[in-house]
Amino acid sequence: MTVRHPCRSDFPALLREFDGQTISYLDNAATTLKPRPVIQAVTEYYETNGANIHRGKHRLSEEASDAYEAARVVIARHLGAAANEVVLVRNTTEALNLVAAGLDLPPDAYVVGCLDAHHSQMLPWRRAGRLEMARVDAHGRIDREHFRALLRGRPRVVALTHCSNVTGVVHPVAELVAEVRAACDAVIVLDAAQSLPHRRVDVQELDVDFMAFSMHKMLGPTGVGVLFGRSAQLARLRPLSVGGGMVDWVDLDGSVDRRIPYTFEAGTPAIASIIGSAAAVRYLEAQDTPQQHQHAEELCAALVGGAVTRPGVRLIGPPDTTDRIALASLRLDDRIPTGEVARLLSDSYGCMVRSGHMCAQPLVSGTAGGEVLRVSAYLYNDVAEIEGFYQALDELLSWIAPVAATGEKLS
Amino acid sequence: MTVRHPCRSDFPALLREFDGQTISYLDNAATTLKPRPVIQAVTEYYETNGANIHRGKHRLSEEASDAYEAARVVIARHLGAAANEVVLVRNTTEALNLVAAGLDLPPDAYVVGCLDAHHSQMLPWRRAGRLEMARVDAHGRIDREHFRALLRGRPRVVALTHCSNVTGVVHPVAELVAEVRAACDAVIVLDAAQSLPHRRVDVQELDVDFMAFSMHKMLGPTGVGVLFGRSAQLARLRPLSVGGGMVDWVDLDGSVDRRIPYTFEAGTPAIASIIGSAAAVRYLEAQDTPQQHQHAEELCAALVGGAVTRPGVRLIGPPDTTDRIALASLRLDDRIPTGEVARLLSDSYGCMVRSGHMCAQPLVSGTAGGEVLRVSAYLYNDVAEIEGFYQALDELLSWIAPVAATGEKLS
Repeated sequence: MTVRHPCRSDFPALLREFDGQTISYLDNAATTLKPRPVIQAVTEYYETNGANIHRGKHRLSEEASDAYEAARVVIARHLGAAANEVVLVRNTTEALNLVAAGLDLPPDAYVVGCLDAHHSQMLPWRRAGRLEMARVDAHGRIDREHFRALLRGRPRVVALTHCSNVTGVVHPVAELVAEVRAACDAVIVLDAAQSLPHRRVDVQELDVDFMAFSMHKMLGPTGVGVLFGRSAQLARLRPLSVGGGMVDWVDLDGSVDRRIPYTFEAGTPAIASIIGSAAAVRYLEAQDTPQQHQHAEELCAALVGGAVTRPGVRLIGPPDTTDRIALASLRLDDRIPTGEVARLLSDSYGCMVRSGHMCAQPLVSGTAGGEVLRVSAYLYNDVAEIEGFYQALDELLSWIAPVAATGEKLS
Repeated sequence: MTVRHPCRSDFPALLREFDGQTISYLDNAATTLKPRPVIQAVTEYYETNGANIHRGKHRLSEEASDAYEAARVVIARHLGAAANEVVLVRNTTEALNLVAAGLDLPPDAYVVGCLDAHHSQMLPWRRAGRLEMARVDAHGRIDREHFRALLRGRPRVVALTHCSNVTGVVHPVAELVAEVRAACDAVIVLDAAQSLPHRRVDVQELDVDFMAFSMHKMLGPTGVGVLFGRSAQLARLRPLSVGGGMVDWVDLDGSVDRRIPYTFEAGTPAIASIIGSAAAVRYLEAQDTPQQHQHAEELCAALVGGAVTRPGVRLIGPPDTTDRIALASLRLDDRIPTGEVARLLSDSYGCMVRSGHMCAQPLVSGTAGGEVLRVSAYLYNDVAEIEGFYQALDELLSWIAPVAATGEKLS
């Protein structure tokens, strides 16, 4: 009997069985499962309160408002930020759109991005200005020469990705930021959706102007994105939405906006999910131990090691474990339908992995013919699950590859 | 012992006591409490699944996607709409902003609204165009002459409010829509946030182009707004946010948007809350009985009756129960601090009511000196709770009014 990771018992979804088979959840870069304290925090709000926040003078509303604002403080402290520098939105995508649209750039504003960006750190900038993307090398590391050349054009914004959701590469953001600061006075916007679940980030140290991430990728409820912004930078932004809750005063002629961060949180927010987010941050901080770091490295080594030695698969990303998260995107033979492999891994082996372009199509088209099989681990996974995944993949490919070679359909 | 409404046992928050006193939750226009089936639907998703939706080929993701899309169908059927005419956003405010910004109106576009609108059906239109607001009479009913006069200017958009969150008046939307259709070809956008929790609406019958509401005001989880739009109208809108999940294809030069409604749902949505919303709609539909309609009328009569006969309070809105929801906004004597009364009602009597401008400041400033005490009931409330509220208010005013008359502070 394999010894499983001790925190697994906190995750009720891991008890799920399909046809008597336990599941291996290896789709953590899409979203993570939720531990009991997070589920309980959400349930508790609904069972014991349920009231709306802000401006309510009654006790239930004050209690809900306190819990909501306390969650903001917990998140802010986790980042080394002040509470008023934390805006609570729906997801990373909305956070990045709020910045891109909110900066109110001239239509031809020059923006530097990176080719391995998620669509959400790419399309908002294409819409807001003229985006040029720094190339990445064959292993997914930023082409620093190209990045420097792009900076010489003095961009208004530099949109960085901390960790690619395809290659798992963690870029040297502090170095990149230093280069930007030396070259121009661009606003620096960091997509930390894939990095923050795996490593603590201090926004003061990183010296970025904005940083966006999603709670659901770090054990939190769905429906909560976070935008950190330095207060002077936040104050420049035009809100995406206007209406109730974000104004101090409205009369027949005009209105006066509330101060940051409230001016960006129009309407009733996702109160329960935001309260649950504080429980997620607390859980994550309790897991921030040397043992867990060691465990993460072992997961990463198992993912990379399994890919680099295996015929029939090509690892998209660096062939080592330096500066990467426990994520491996695999390119299969052109004739093998990747989505079908993902489905068979799920249905016959209980392995949940993702297939497709990973919302990073320019990169995945350029390096992997448009589709990868992505395996992403998190703190509750075991090395045995990753070994099990590779074993299952071997078995599947042993009969799929010959069929695919004949050109026949698999199903 | 009073007989309580049978559905009360479905609402765990109603068991809450403060200092040994049961609570009367009468702030339902701000948000409603949640019944067990809704809480359970949210919890069940987290406990047994937790995966992300869309494009995932594994079984957990397919199951989550099915539940998410099934919720969209349940909501659409509730409105008499097709599933692709339902966009799931965060709240009513976001839904209205999506329309106002998404129509991409010329800056001076003429928009007709109404003075009793919530800020969320007012500020987005001020930002998108030139808003003129139809007056309301002393009872909060639309000044039809003025409305007709405004229509003669041939607005591009008419932004209606189905039910005012201050007066509780349900406007004759079908009649107003017919007048608009006869006068011009304006896009008609309806804020149904306060009406839909109380009465079923069929969007085909109402003949509106867009309709927005929030699930949290109708027993659902926080963080879910719904935008209904006729498909041809939705197809005209520019998304508020762009990024992952809303594109079919991205390459180095451009991208191709997904079809409606997905093009408006960028990033990972509030999966759990949206799944829980289906449970809310089902619960509400089960409560759509003659008994419950009778009960709603009794609640409304108790609220209005208590206000019109009572010295020291003035009812903002019609003095009768015709075409109104069970909501009463009360203006107290100028010298009485309304917020303090709300706090005392909560702390000394367990009555949770709201105070302030209700995010409808132009109306509340014009009719009630800027502040009201709003009492709003819902299906789980009893007439006895409303009688208890008025009794508590009498007691409070009996000592506050003389103190206030002296000009001294209350606390």
